[in-house]
Parts: sequence; C-alpha cells; structure tokens
Amino acid sequence: MPETILVIGGGPAGLEAARSIATIGGRAILVERRPVLGGTPDESNYAALTPRMGSAQDALDILRAGVVDPDIDVRVNTTVTGCSGTVGDFAVTLISPTGETTESVGSIIVATGFQHFDPGRETQMYGYYEHADVITLPDAEKMLKEHHFVRPSNGEAPRNVAFIQCVGSRDRRLGNEYCSKVCCGVASKEAIEIRRLLPDCKVYIFYIDMRMYGYWENEIYWPAQEQYNVTYIRGIVTEIVAKDGRLLMKGEDTTMGRPLEVLMDVIVLSVGMEPSRGTRDVAGILGIAQNKYGFIALPGEPMDVVSTSVPGIFVAGAAAGPKDLEDTIGMAGAAAVRAVGAVRGGARAGAAAAR
Amino acid sequence: MPETILVIGGGPAGLEAARSIATIGGRAILVERRPVLGGTPDESNYAALTPRMGSAQDALDILRAGVVDPDIDVRVNTTVTGCSGTVGDFAVTLISPTGETTESVGSIIVATGFQHFDPGRETQMYGYYEHADVITLPDAEKMLKEHHFVRPSNGEAPRNVAFIQCVGSRDRRLGNEYCSKVCCGVASKEAIEIRRLLPDCKVYIFYIDMRMYGYWENEIYWPAQEQYNVTYIRGIVTEIVAKDGRLLMKGEDTTMGRPLEVLMDVIVLSVGMEPSRGTRDVAGILGIAQNKYGFIALPGEPMDVVSTSVPGIFVAGAAAGPKDLEDTIGMAGAAAVRAVGAVRGGARAGAAAAR
Repeated sequence: MPETILVIGGGPAGLEAARSIATIGGRAILVERRPVLGGTPDESNYAALTPRMGSAQDALDILRAGVVDPDIDVRVNTTVTGCSGTVGDFAVTLISPTGETTESVGSIIVATGFQHFDPGRETQMYGYYEHADVITLPDAEKMLKEHHFVRPSNGEAPRNVAFIQCVGSRDRRLGNEYCSKVCCGVASKEAIEIRRLLPDCKVYIFYIDMRMYGYWENEIYWPAQEQYNVTYIRGIVTEIVAKDGRLLMKGEDTTMGRPLEVLMDVIVLSVGMEPSRGTRDVAGILGIAQNKYGFIALPGEPMDVVSTSVPGIFVAGAAAGPKDLEDTIGMAGAAAVRAVGAVRGGARAGAAAAR
Repeated sequence: MPETILVIGGGPAGLEAARSIATIGGRAILVERRPVLGGTPDESNYAALTPRMGSAQDALDILRAGVVDPDIDVRVNTTVTGCSGTVGDFAVTLISPTGETTESVGSIIVATGFQHFDPGRETQMYGYYEHADVITLPDAEKMLKEHHFVRPSNGEAPRNVAFIQCVGSRDRRLGNEYCSKVCCGVASKEAIEIRRLLPDCKVYIFYIDMRMYGYWENEIYWPAQEQYNVTYIRGIVTEIVAKDGRLLMKGEDTTMGRPLEVLMDVIVLSVGMEPSRGTRDVAGILGIAQNKYGFIALPGEPMDVVSTSVPGIFVAGAAAGPKDLEDTIGMAGAAAVRAVGAVRGGARAGAAAAR
C-alpha cells in the first residue's frame, strides 16, 4: 500500500498540508502548476496581510521553508492530468516540461484555491474594462506593494478613493450568493494603507454589512475608523460614469435614505472569491463533487471539514469555498491528519484488531 | 521522551484533537472536568446546528465515538491543577474524585473553550435578570430542543419575538471589542425554528451588521428572509421596560432613521463568547499568555494558528477566541499535527541528520 500522499497546489493550503504530512511522519508529493510556490498570494502580489499588516512575502517564505524536507517531493511546473484507483491505491498522472509520469499514492489533498472574481464578467455597471481608474482589490494591492497609490489614468495621487464591497459576492444575478468572507477586511486594510501613503486623500467604503468577524473587528475595523478616518457608508452603488476626467458614482446611501452621486478619482471593486480554474479542472479529473458554485463539496460538514465525496481525497483551503488565511492553515492540518489516516488505515485497523 | 499528549477539554475541539492524534499514530490523555464528554454544545443543550440544522446530538455522538480508541485515555471528572517541565517532558497534575496523579506528557493541547456572555453583568439596560421574558440564545435553544417556544412568564405562545444582536460583543464599554462571529447565524437559525413552530409569530432581528460569512449567507440568511419571513431591522436597542405585561423595546431604526418603540412578548439576547473559566484557569496553570480579552494568545498567526507562547503547548477551538464549529474542527487537526510533531521532534531531527 503506497504511503505517499499527493498534494495538489503550492499555495498556503498545499504548502501547509505538505509540511503537516511530513511533521507527522508521512511522505508527500507536492505539485504546483506554476514555476514557483506561493499560490495566489504570490501570483497576485499580496503585500501586507489582513488584519495585522504582516508581510505576505515573509509569511510565504515561512510556508515555503516548511516544505524543504526529505519527505516532501516538490514538483513545480507540474499538473495532474489523470487519476484512477481508490483510497490507499491511487495512480495519478503528472505532466511537466520533462515529461509524463504516473505516481502511486495512498491519498490526495486538493489545495487548488480560488480566483478573484472578474468584474468585467457580468457587472458591466462598474465599467472595469472601460474606465482606467476603476480597479480591483488585487490591482490596488499591487500598487500598495510598491508603496505608491495613483490614478492609473494619469499617474497622479487621488484625492478621493471609494471601495465598493460585494462585487461578485452576495449576488444572485451572478449565481454567487455566498459571502466571500475576506473582502471587508482586505478593503479596510487597503484603505488604511492608502490613508498612510496619502494623508490628504479621502477614502470611503460603500458596503451592505461590514463583516469583520472575530478580532478583525478590533484589529482593523475600529482603527480604520478612529485612527485613519476611513469613512464607511452603508449604501448601494448602481452605476459609474466618466465625468470631467473623474468618476461619477451613482447609487443610494441606505442609512441616510438618500440618493448618492459623488465624484471619485479611483474606485476599487472589492471582488470576491470564485473557484480557480485549477479547482474546477482537478475536481473533474479526480471525480469529486462540487457544490453549485463550483467549489469542492464537503459532505461531512460540520464534523469533517476536509473529506470530499470520494474516500481518500481531501480538500484544504479556498478550493472548498471562501476562506481566510487562518481558516486555510487550520484546514490544511486537518486534511493532513485525514490523509495520513487514510494511508495508515489498513495497518492501524490491523494493529487495533491484534490487541 | 514521553510520546503521550495531554488534551484538556472534552468539547468538540478536544474530542477532535484527541481523535486526530490517534489517527496519526499518537497517544492521548483526554481530560474533561464534567462527568460527560461534549463540552458547551452538550452543557448548553444545543439542538440544531447552524447553518444546516443538523442534530447537535448526532454530531457530538460522532465526535465521542472518535475517542473510543485504545490510544486515547479518556478521563472525565478530572481537572488539571499543576504543570512543570518543558516541551517533550511536561509533568502534569490531574485531580479526579479517585485521587491525584501526575502524568508525564510530551506536549499539551488546550481545548477549554468559551462561555456565553452573562447579560446581567453590565448590560443592565436589557433587564435579563429583571424580566422573565428576556432570555438568551442558549435559553431559547433549550426550549427549541424540546420543540416548543413560549413566554417564560406565562407559558403562552408569543406573538412577537425580537432578537437583539451583539450583546456582549462589539462593545468597548464591556471591554469585548471583538465580534463573536457565530451569533448572527445562530440567531437566524433560531428565528427560523420559531417561525416553523409558531407560524403566526412575528420574528424580528435587530442588528448592526449581519455577519453571515461564506455559505451562511445563502444557507441561512436568505432562507430566513425569503422562506420564513424573519424581519431584519438594522437598529440599536437602548432599553427594555415592562409595559402591560409585555416588553417595550426602545431604540432606533438606523436604516429608517427613526426612533423605535415596539412591544414584544419575548426578547432574545444574542450573547457572545467570552473565555470560559476553564480557559482562564488553565492558562494560569500552564503559564501561557492570554490576549487582553482572556482568550489564549496565538503569537504565530497567521502561519501558525495553534501555537501558544509556550513551546509544546497548543490550543484548539474557542479557547483562542470566537470560532464556529468548522473553525474548531480544522484547528483541532492542526493542533494535533503540531503536538505530535513536538513529541516526535527529537527522533525526527535525528533521522533527518542521518540521511
């Protein structure tokens, strides 16, 4: 019975799952389609983490260092293209620039993550592809990583910046009814960073509900308001149009109960999470059930937060739906436990029977 | 070097941590101060779980069955009263009705959980100890478990029920600035259950922000509104007074911008989470740092969500702050990985060096 565990995806979930497997005495093959490890936080240039503003790069370095281990076989530029067999004895086909191999593994952890919602897809009212100064959370993050924040249209410092929450989330029209969980926190973090860089710039966050669960409330929401004067407005934005070289935002302030028409220099769309293409592809290849949004289904919840519809195949992180980094790290440990348990199941059951 | 791991607390976090340890080949001693396993969900009579309404009893039975294992030594009616030593070699003193023992363990997982905020403590404006018909989320849960819901003052079915959110949470006056994360979901779940039992009863939820992250949005918030006609009102409740045998609730509807004065038959206070007495006591005994709220501090976040300030001592579940059940289960797996890694650290380092 092969004791090796395949971990698919080299982002935080996969890195932590592989490290966890090695920590408890297992062996892992970690495959990543990109040439580098790090996943979406690396690919999308995350700078400071929410809520404590720690360096995303430092955090990824810790996770990457965790998989430098004789029991972890890291394969970048590699994708999974086939899978057969059952728990304890899967045969997986891996393709890389150096060729195709088939590996025998006892269990599998899917850690293929999410992608940011594409605001051009169906929410044309925000004009993401029309107006240069309408950007997304990851677009803003990219600028903030370089310690500057400008109007993309002219390179000048903005005087007014607005974040619009729930773009691609809580939206039945798009089929994305779920809340993406992290966007309220990430927008507030970026708002603070903009206020630090540009003390004369006014920053507004237009929201439905501010979802700052747990310590995000005191660690980021209160400081944003009290120390950085970020203005939170409960409202709905229905349209963005160009006007006099700026952006006219139309909608309604639902707390004041009045129409909203304000000029902004930069508008940041707080795009939510959708299953990554890797998550959709791998679900198909492995034959594991997805929920109606395309994320990996978790039939055993709440008592089992990592088992998929196929015995021996587990999931960690945002491949299973919106997750913050802490959720992902916890889930990766749980997935490692179940995956190691699955490969040891036979031996363990025998030992227990022999007592 | 002792390979046994001490798990303190027999609620969901401790049960899942102990099961995980055994799954990956470790040994655990699981101690629980009460005579039965199950923790707060058992002690507080949880009935249906949020958001999917599965039976809490069934879920606990699954968790309890997981610790029936030759490698898990379960000790109920037992508390930890002393601890010395360091990672790899702790000596812990356990007291039970049968006497005191000292156990040698390699690492420790703290899973001592939370307690519900006592609404009599400082929020006298809600009159919890004054009005029989002002109850808490767990009080309501206890009735719902018996499939009835009445006015405690007279045993009659209520015609109007209001939930007040954020009692003991998001409240600087109390020192509880954090959001307790689960109360929006739990209140909405109970509101649905009341509507099912009493179709003629109107149910209102007064809230600041509806924090329905991830799938709670589509799994409970939308059905509550659309299928069960629960009325959500963004507002602040400042006072509850008795009037004509009912409860007059005073405050402000912040969306409509007008004062609020409505008569209710039952008012449910959505009390938040505070560290349990066990969490505070055990933190002192083990010498692990707590945050300013008394929950166990996690200095390694976000990349390490389970390590406390003391090497070899880990935490799982709501002892570290507000957590839902899924968070807790994930975290328990991660804690098991780190705790097993800590006891195997020496052997593993030697093996790696020998390669």
